[in-house]
Amino acid sequence: MTVNIRPIRPSDYQPVISVIDDWWNGRHMADKLPRLFFEHFTDTGFAAERNGELVGFLVGFTSQSRPAEAYIHFVGVHPDERGRGLGRRLYEHFFVAVRARHCQLVRAITAPVNQGSVRFHQRMGFDIEPGDTQASGAPVAAGYDGDGQDRVRFVKTLAA
Amino acid sequence: MTVNIRPIRPSDYQPVISVIDDWWNGRHMADKLPRLFFEHFTDTGFAAERNGELVGFLVGFTSQSRPAEAYIHFVGVHPDERGRGLGRRLYEHFFVAVRARHCQLVRAITAPVNQGSVRFHQRMGFDIEPGDTQASGAPVAAGYDGDGQDRVRFVKTLAA
Repeated sequence: MTVNIRPIRPSDYQPVISVIDDWWNGRHMADKLPRLFFEHFTDTGFAAERNGELVGFLVGFTSQSRPAEAYIHFVGVHPDERGRGLGRRLYEHFFVAVRARHCQLVRAITAPVNQGSVRFHQRMGFDIEPGDTQASGAPVAAGYDGDGQDRVRFVKTLAA
Repeated sequence: MTVNIRPIRPSDYQPVISVIDDWWNGRHMADKLPRLFFEHFTDTGFAAERNGELVGFLVGFTSQSRPAEAYIHFVGVHPDERGRGLGRRLYEHFFVAVRARHCQLVRAITAPVNQGSVRFHQRMGFDIEPGDTQASGAPVAAGYDGDGQDRVRFVKTLAA
C-alpha cells in the first residue's frame, strides 16, 4: 500500500489537530496550527494518506507581500512513517506548487531543539540564515517568534 | 496628540509580542501570533501609533485559495486606548485594503469568552455564522481551532 499525496482540505483539520501533540512527543503544538491554514491556503498545502488514513501533512503559502517568496509553516509525519522519504515528497509537492506561482525562494524555520529538522532542511538543500547566537552548531535567531522562542531560519532558492 | 495608522512592518513584531500577553489580561497569546504575519502579510496589516509608541495593530490577509475572501487574524489595542474607536479605524483600514484587492467578504473569529469582541464585530456589521452549540446567546463552532477551542465565527459582506 503506497502513500498518496493530495491537496489539503478544511476537513483535514480535525484529524490533524487530534494527533499533532502525539506526533510531536507530547509537545503542545495545537496553538501553533490554527484552522486558518486549512481554510485559506489549500492550494499550497498537502495531505498524505495511506489506505485512507492521514499519515502526513504540509501547510504553507506564497508570501502575500513578497510574491517571489514562499513559506512552509508546518509539516507533520506520523511517527511510523518517518525515515521513508515522505517529508521529502511533501516538500517537493510544495516546491512544484509555489514555483508554478512564480516563487523563487522558499523559507522555513524550526526550533533549535529540533536537530532532526535542521538536518532534514540541510538535506533538502536549504541554507541556514545568519543568526545572533548559536545552538548545537547552528546559527539561531534569538527570540524570533517571541520571548524564548529562538528559531533556526532556512532559505532555499528554487531552480528556474 | 492623535493616533496615526500605517502599514505594519516586520520591526513591529518585537514591540507587539512584548506587550501582547499584558494587553490580554495575562492570557498567553504569543503562540497564536508567530512572526510570519508581520513578514509576509504587510500589505493588509496595520500598526497604530501615538507619539511614536505602538498602541494597536491588526494582522490579516486575503485568502490565497478563496480570493474573494479576506480574514482578520489578530487585533490588539492598548488597554488605555480602548473605547475611542481605534479598533473600528483599524478594521476600516483593512476593509479598504482588501476591497482594493477585490475581496467581497471578510471573516474573523473570536473565543466565546470574549463577549466584548462579539459585540464589537456586531457593531462593525458582521453577522455570526451558525454554530453547533451556544455560549452566552451566540452560536459557537465547537472545537473549531482544536480540542476545547470553541470559536464564534463572523462574516461581513463588503459594500461594492
